[in-house]
Amino acid sequence: MKVGFIGLGAMGSAMASNLIKAGHEVTVWNRSPAPAEPLASLGAKVVKTADRAAQGDVLFSMLANDQAVRSVFIDGGLLDGMDKGTVHVNHATISVALAREMAEEHARRGLDYVAAPVFGRPDVAAAGKLNILVAGKPNVIDRVRPLLEAMAGRIWPLGEEAERANVVKIAGNFMIGAAIESMAEASALTRAHGVSAADFLDVMTNSLFATPAYQGYAKLIAESRYTPAGFALPLGYKDIGLALAAADATRVPLPLAGLLRDSLLEALAGGDENVDWSIMAQVAARRAHLDERDL
Amino acid sequence: MKVGFIGLGAMGSAMASNLIKAGHEVTVWNRSPAPAEPLASLGAKVVKTADRAAQGDVLFSMLANDQAVRSVFIDGGLLDGMDKGTVHVNHATISVALAREMAEEHARRGLDYVAAPVFGRPDVAAAGKLNILVAGKPNVIDRVRPLLEAMAGRIWPLGEEAERANVVKIAGNFMIGAAIESMAEASALTRAHGVSAADFLDVMTNSLFATPAYQGYAKLIAESRYTPAGFALPLGYKDIGLALAAADATRVPLPLAGLLRDSLLEALAGGDENVDWSIMAQVAARRAHLDERDL
Amino acid sequence: MKVGFIGLGAMGSAMASNLIKAGHEVTVWNRSPAPAEPLASLGAKVVKTADRAAQGDVLFSMLANDQAVRSVFIDGGLLDGMDKGTVHVNHATISVALAREMAEEHARRGLDYVAAPVFGRPDVAAAGKLNILVAGKPNVIDRVRPLLEAMAGRIWPLGEEAERANVVKIAGNFMIGAAIESMAEASALTRAHGVSAADFLDVMTNSLFATPAYQGYAKLIAESRYTPAGFALPLGYKDIGLALAAADATRVPLPLAGLLRDSLLEALAGGDENVDWSIMAQVAARRAHLDERDL
Amino acid sequence: MKVGFIGLGAMGSAMASNLIKAGHEVTVWNRSPAPAEPLASLGAKVVKTADRAAQGDVLFSMLANDQAVRSVFIDGGLLDGMDKGTVHVNHATISVALAREMAEEHARRGLDYVAAPVFGRPDVAAAGKLNILVAGKPNVIDRVRPLLEAMAGRIWPLGEEAERANVVKIAGNFMIGAAIESMAEASALTRAHGVSAADFLDVMTNSLFATPAYQGYAKLIAESRYTPAGFALPLGYKDIGLALAAADATRVPLPLAGLLRDSLLEALAGGDENVDWSIMAQVAARRAHLDERDL
Repeated sequence: MKVGFIGLGAMGSAMASNLIKAGHEVTVWNRSPAPAEPLASLGAKVVKTADRAAQGDVLFSMLANDQAVRSVFIDGGLLDGMDKGTVHVNHATISVALAREMAEEHARRGLDYVAAPVFGRPDVAAAGKLNILVAGKPNVIDRVRPLLEAMAGRIWPLGEEAERANVVKIAGNFMIGAAIESMAEASALTRAHGVSAADFLDVMTNSLFATPAYQGYAKLIAESRYTPAGFALPLGYKDIGLALAAADATRVPLPLAGLLRDSLLEALAGGDENVDWSIMAQVAARRAHLDERDL
Repeated sequence: MKVGFIGLGAMGSAMASNLIKAGHEVTVWNRSPAPAEPLASLGAKVVKTADRAAQGDVLFSMLANDQAVRSVFIDGGLLDGMDKGTVHVNHATISVALAREMAEEHARRGLDYVAAPVFGRPDVAAAGKLNILVAGKPNVIDRVRPLLEAMAGRIWPLGEEAERANVVKIAGNFMIGAAIESMAEASALTRAHGVSAADFLDVMTNSLFATPAYQGYAKLIAESRYTPAGFALPLGYKDIGLALAAADATRVPLPLAGLLRDSLLEALAGGDENVDWSIMAQVAARRAHLDERDL
Repeated sequence: MKVGFIGLGAMGSAMASNLIKAGHEVTVWNRSPAPAEPLASLGAKVVKTADRAAQGDVLFSMLANDQAVRSVFIDGGLLDGMDKGTVHVNHATISVALAREMAEEHARRGLDYVAAPVFGRPDVAAAGKLNILVAGKPNVIDRVRPLLEAMAGRIWPLGEEAERANVVKIAGNFMIGAAIESMAEASALTRAHGVSAADFLDVMTNSLFATPAYQGYAKLIAESRYTPAGFALPLGYKDIGLALAAADATRVPLPLAGLLRDSLLEALAGGDENVDWSIMAQVAARRAHLDERDL
Repeated sequence: MKVGFIGLGAMGSAMASNLIKAGHEVTVWNRSPAPAEPLASLGAKVVKTADRAAQGDVLFSMLANDQAVRSVFIDGGLLDGMDKGTVHVNHATISVALAREMAEEHARRGLDYVAAPVFGRPDVAAAGKLNILVAGKPNVIDRVRPLLEAMAGRIWPLGEEAERANVVKIAGNFMIGAAIESMAEASALTRAHGVSAADFLDVMTNSLFATPAYQGYAKLIAESRYTPAGFALPLGYKDIGLALAAADATRVPLPLAGLLRDSLLEALAGGDENVDWSIMAQVAARRAHLDERDL
């Protein structure tokens, strides 16, 4: 099929490359041009404005946050120029409020819209093994399914309303944050009893919690190695903020999300934003003054 | 080898039966006699006092909590009557303080002691696949290793001091509690947005969190089925209390453990103790008044 | 002096009436006309558009929240029409971000601006005993001081930048919320031990905490009387949100504010917004299932 | 009357001196003899064993904690030797559990017992202005009332069961801790916006919170002066622990008490115990890295 892809960060680039490899005709656009080059060498057509990527059967977008999505699609007018035959598949992690607004903005213009946030890091995206959460009209999802399959290990249909996929993504990231905080506090406790974070987390992530979600962060915590960031602290803080905003809008107390917000805020107060959000483990250790102790 | 086993709850019975099946000569004792009967039919010798189970090469014990361990071994005098050649392998989940005290009580009497708390439910114990955390003198651990292997999927040596194994067990149970609370809150959030706990947890426990530790509790939460208890609420509350006590003794703030304590206490205030500790999900939903809403 | 007053809720009306009684020539405006009538009978001139109240020496405003302030002054264009000789004294409880923006909007137009949030309920306002926090240029404050004195028990100068007064107001309201939560939890604890909230709070608010801030809320808690609202639940929730927003912007973890947010959200989830924010005491009691107990 | 007083810390000494000044015949005892000397010079009879102070009409005791009370009265055998005509008035801040146990131990021996914990610092005790919470049989309280009046600004009868007075004391100290934490966090927030803790707390403690309970701690926070301790950090931590223990026993979630426990634990982890518990303000500032900022 003839498709467009806008937003070529580490995730978007890996996803677009899988569409190319699957034989589709892919037109790409990114605000800054450099990330488009490797895709061009794979066969992508590179365009200079977003609207020119939005003229095929499907437009995929993988933008960073609410602000970027709003800026390109609503304020930037991209939706106004889109053809009614083009389906928009939005992979961004955005707020529930914007998810709803985007669905309405598309509907108002007679455009087909699929919310399709993903679980998985860039390496998983490159391997075409993402978990893709999809919400939208069944017949529209059916049309884009072959394309999604080129990027996904598994596709999770979650109903028609776009926000359903987005709230699952947000709730899932909150669960990852909780897993990190639990490793952070638990390993502070064992360290104070003479068992290193490395030894403790080795047990846990090879027994009860033997999943990549735990293992990746456990490695960073065990080695106190928070740069380069796999998932940057400000993004983690933003995502917990999305959970709290969704909870606020529907009156759902989330004390654990509040606790994560405070740990991340304490890390941010330290001044360094270019760190992985598993730096929560350093916050937990600092509260216990562990690095000043002779253990 | 000739071994004894005291404490024949669901876990202890399953573990003892694997020792019997491995060809060892097993003498068993339990405070109430009924649980010994199935083991007798497998070939165990049943005795009427604990000291008569403590006369072989190794004495295993799997008692419920600090009080039971203290009552049998210290206050009940069992240690005073034990032979110096008998190694005591203590599988109970006990406090760090009692772990240290038990190690001292054994050392003072010249008795060999191995702390060996386990991760795994009764079905895992029955399958001989437990994760066993061990701490003690290396040569003593070597002596009991073949026996442990009859019960374990994997054995995790954690050093000499007994408390090292116990703090890892305590910190691990705290991590399980945190995983439950994260599912509890996250699914309250998705429910408020129209995505059922079943649908949400199906995604999560088959993608990022595809481990038995998550899957078992997710099933209970998805079905709101908290009886019969897999792991009873008061036991979960006790274990979080062990984490907080260990943290208190070493000055380690654990805000997440405090949050779990409050959720469990709120569940206990409801009056029903015969429920699984994943009833934390009901607490999270109740705070959001979800069951009164028309969703 | 010749002054204007816009925003005639319970607070604004009481404040404006004191300006009239002090002999000033007062022109009033309110979005809905009814609240202006009692002031007319005291001698106020009632006008039909905000800009006509903004033509004297000083314009006072006491609007409900960020949205109302922005809607009237910025989006509504009132600032664009104001005379450079008119000082604007803004009594509203607004966010730190809007405080800064308002200061800039005035400065850009050459208008004098005084941030002047207040502590005190309508009865205190009526008695002319408000605590007024003021920030602005010293010479401008001096010009409006005689007018403020007609409404204040005490005036607290806090420097030049407007946000300084507003952050003190926000931090102060957070402290009131904390005081309520502490009474809520403490009286749940005593109730569970057979000492009624009334008996307990009678001791506390006549010994250690003998101030109106405690006594007023203690009375509501002791009597479980949350309607009519003295300070409505949604307003309390909004104010704690202002504290969290200010904390977010400056990277200051406020775990206690997060806890208050959760208690208020739990109250809001119950569905009734027309209650006093001291309903936090009902939330604390409900978590302990106190009303189902036979105490 | 002829009375005894044991436990001559700063509080006990001040209280005993007021009994002497009121004309009573006072026999005193303290574990270490030095504190008895100033009272001897006022006319007290100093004895070398606790039992010799327990032979008058009333025995007052003001010991430090559960351990001291249990050690002297139960384990030390003082109750066994007391005369049935002697009323014991226990001023100590002890756990609800020990309060109940003490009441039973007295009742079992036919001894009259009054629980009489107090609110007030040593200077308030010296001025004879304590708030004394009393629980016990009405006729027994009537007998000791004139003596209590020599030490009290006000006496608060709370019923017959001893624990009623003790739970009020515990809940009250929890409220003081909450007030400190609220000042700690609120002033961290204003500092981050350029308003010093001194300026902010000056406003608050001279307007909404104009009570000694706030003013005393506000002064310490404003000056970052945590030594010498007015109320030592470990005592504050102990008292919050008493609240959590009472809450545990009666199944009452107290999230705010848990939060205070964590703040105090974080302070204790810093290593210095000889500081006032208002050092919670330093913890709040440290979480926000305020002292490293250029504000």
